[in-house]
Amino acid sequence: MARVSQEHLDARRRQILDGARRCFTRNGFHATSMQDVLGEVGLSAGAVYRYFRSKDEIVAAVAAETLECVRESYAMITAADPPPTPDELFGSVLGRLREFLGDPADQRALPQLLMQVWGETLRNPEVARVLTKGYEGLRAQWVQLIEAYQARGWVDPEANSEYLARTLIATVQGYFVQQALFGGMEPAEFQEGLRALVSMRVPDAHRAGPADQTGTAAR
Amino acid sequence: MARVSQEHLDARRRQILDGARRCFTRNGFHATSMQDVLGEVGLSAGAVYRYFRSKDEIVAAVAAETLECVRESYAMITAADPPPTPDELFGSVLGRLREFLGDPADQRALPQLLMQVWGETLRNPEVARVLTKGYEGLRAQWVQLIEAYQARGWVDPEANSEYLARTLIATVQGYFVQQALFGGMEPAEFQEGLRALVSMRVPDAHRAGPADQTGTAAR
Repeated sequence: MARVSQEHLDARRRQILDGARRCFTRNGFHATSMQDVLGEVGLSAGAVYRYFRSKDEIVAAVAAETLECVRESYAMITAADPPPTPDELFGSVLGRLREFLGDPADQRALPQLLMQVWGETLRNPEVARVLTKGYEGLRAQWVQLIEAYQARGWVDPEANSEYLARTLIATVQGYFVQQALFGGMEPAEFQEGLRALVSMRVPDAHRAGPADQTGTAAR
Repeated sequence: MARVSQEHLDARRRQILDGARRCFTRNGFHATSMQDVLGEVGLSAGAVYRYFRSKDEIVAAVAAETLECVRESYAMITAADPPPTPDELFGSVLGRLREFLGDPADQRALPQLLMQVWGETLRNPEVARVLTKGYEGLRAQWVQLIEAYQARGWVDPEANSEYLARTLIATVQGYFVQQALFGGMEPAEFQEGLRALVSMRVPDAHRAGPADQTGTAAR
């Protein structure tokens, strides 16, 4: 067998992952077969199995790359001074993610793919490992950002940065759930909602204090 | 055949749905077979098929009941004066939901069941219909609550209440995603994070103004 350079091996791996990602983004990965991937990348089964033994392995590798793209986007923008607000961060990271994945014509394709990835974690241990690692990294990045917010007085210094980090990550996950299930929410609309959310002025004394009578009660 | 009273029919239907819900909460509904449901309720296949023609129909009926429970819990608490803050609302509704569903020993069982319901909407049109209707009702309830917030000055009166409603629903959906996938977040911790989120003080002038130098930038 001819000797093969590392560059060649890397390029082949790259070619397979790019093709698989296109298939997954287009059709989701339940509906994508190994045959589809082979057709997309124009390689034989033998050539592909040299790099990945199963579709599950490809799925895990694509998930890892995607999370790495998200991590890099976060690192790039959270380093800004002043720090980005949560809505700015969302807009910027989503923009890079769509660029990386190749934005499909159907706005719901990416969120639906993401929901499939989540579903996979319950049955594919390698995807679960990759996702747990990515989630931990994301939490650490958010905690750092929240500490910068706290230093500026944007967040109560007494607040638990870990809980707030998870809650902020939750808003974005929930956005994907809604887009996947129901559609109809543009990223810009979600950004506007997020902006209104971090601008709320819930009175501190609300719980302990007497009912105030200045407003109209909800029915 | 003996005549059967409406009460008897209703009680049987109730018995089947309660048993199915216990099975689903315990094992998820992919892993629950019609046989499991029959065993749980102690009825014959013939008796059950009189009410539900398939597991899909039972799943849709259980989803509809669960959403109705959520809707009622919201209606009850959003009527309070002053209105509940988002974290108070979450605590109250989740408490009722767990009571209704029968809180399982495993904290991740309910969130995982919910993720299964979401996954079902992509392939089961009846569940999709039920979920879309429930989501619309929830949005309407949140919009009403946000209008009460706006009347009290807790939310900018110029903010789009529909976008903010969806973003607040997103936080809760994201909480379930995190619990389902990774566990380790108590409802009380999420409530604390939500409280910190609605108490943020992001300066209005941030985007347009010059970088301020009072704080520490994130790395």
